[in-house]
Amino acid sequence: MKERNKTVPFDYMYRSTWQLISKMYNEEALKRDSIMTIGFVLVNIHYKNGTPSTALGPKMGIEATSLSRTLKKMEALDLIYKEANPEDGRSVLIKLTEKGKEQREISKQIVLQFNQEVAQNLTSKQIETFIEVTETIQELIQDKLIF
Amino acid sequence: MKERNKTVPFDYMYRSTWQLISKMYNEEALKRDSIMTIGFVLVNIHYKNGTPSTALGPKMGIEATSLSRTLKKMEALDLIYKEANPEDGRSVLIKLTEKGKEQREISKQIVLQFNQEVAQNLTSKQIETFIEVTETIQELIQDKLIF
Repeated sequence: MKERNKTVPFDYMYRSTWQLISKMYNEEALKRDSIMTIGFVLVNIHYKNGTPSTALGPKMGIEATSLSRTLKKMEALDLIYKEANPEDGRSVLIKLTEKGKEQREISKQIVLQFNQEVAQNLTSKQIETFIEVTETIQELIQDKLIF
Repeated sequence: MKERNKTVPFDYMYRSTWQLISKMYNEEALKRDSIMTIGFVLVNIHYKNGTPSTALGPKMGIEATSLSRTLKKMEALDLIYKEANPEDGRSVLIKLTEKGKEQREISKQIVLQFNQEVAQNLTSKQIETFIEVTETIQELIQDKLIF
């Protein structure tokens, strides 16, 4: 038996599952005339107070250039607007327009529906263990215990 | 309590864990003068017989344009070469050069080390449950039981 067969491909399982989830969200978003990244940004902007542009990237784990391209598109679609940040002169606040607020609720519903549907198909014990496994892997990486 | 707090963010956990793994692989690959996608392609090419170019994209879950860009780079780096496919005139076989074979072993070691290290930090029961959870989610998406 090859060494390989004994190994569980954790990396591949996270990668392929995230790719499936992302493809599914995109298909669902396309039906509703949106795209996934825009939906993600919307969900991450504070409904009432807006969110500093500089906080969005790290929060979502996307690159600054890719984020600024998406924000430009969202401004053109009248989903967001920029406002001076009273607490930090170097950043701007990204705030939701009325249309953005409506779209945000739709995106939130899609994400909520997915996560609830998954939870309904798992036992509490399975969910608990999945969270433990994910936390263990993230800690191993963040504490640089592997490489 | 907000509705949101009751929901386990499965999507976010796969996404953020895959991003962490991917960042870790890239950092590890950079030290060794390689990049992650190249490492992934190398691992997916059959060591002896090569792999048809048309089979690589679906196998790795990457787009055709992104794959062909990577293959061009890999050819320039003398890691692979193309050969007519005796079994299918419409595709070419991607084969490893000697340098490609050496690099492939290094990439395989990195992936193996990560997955083994993770497995060592989990119980058999945790691993079994993680596989069940991942399979359940992938089935729910593929059978279109959510959207």
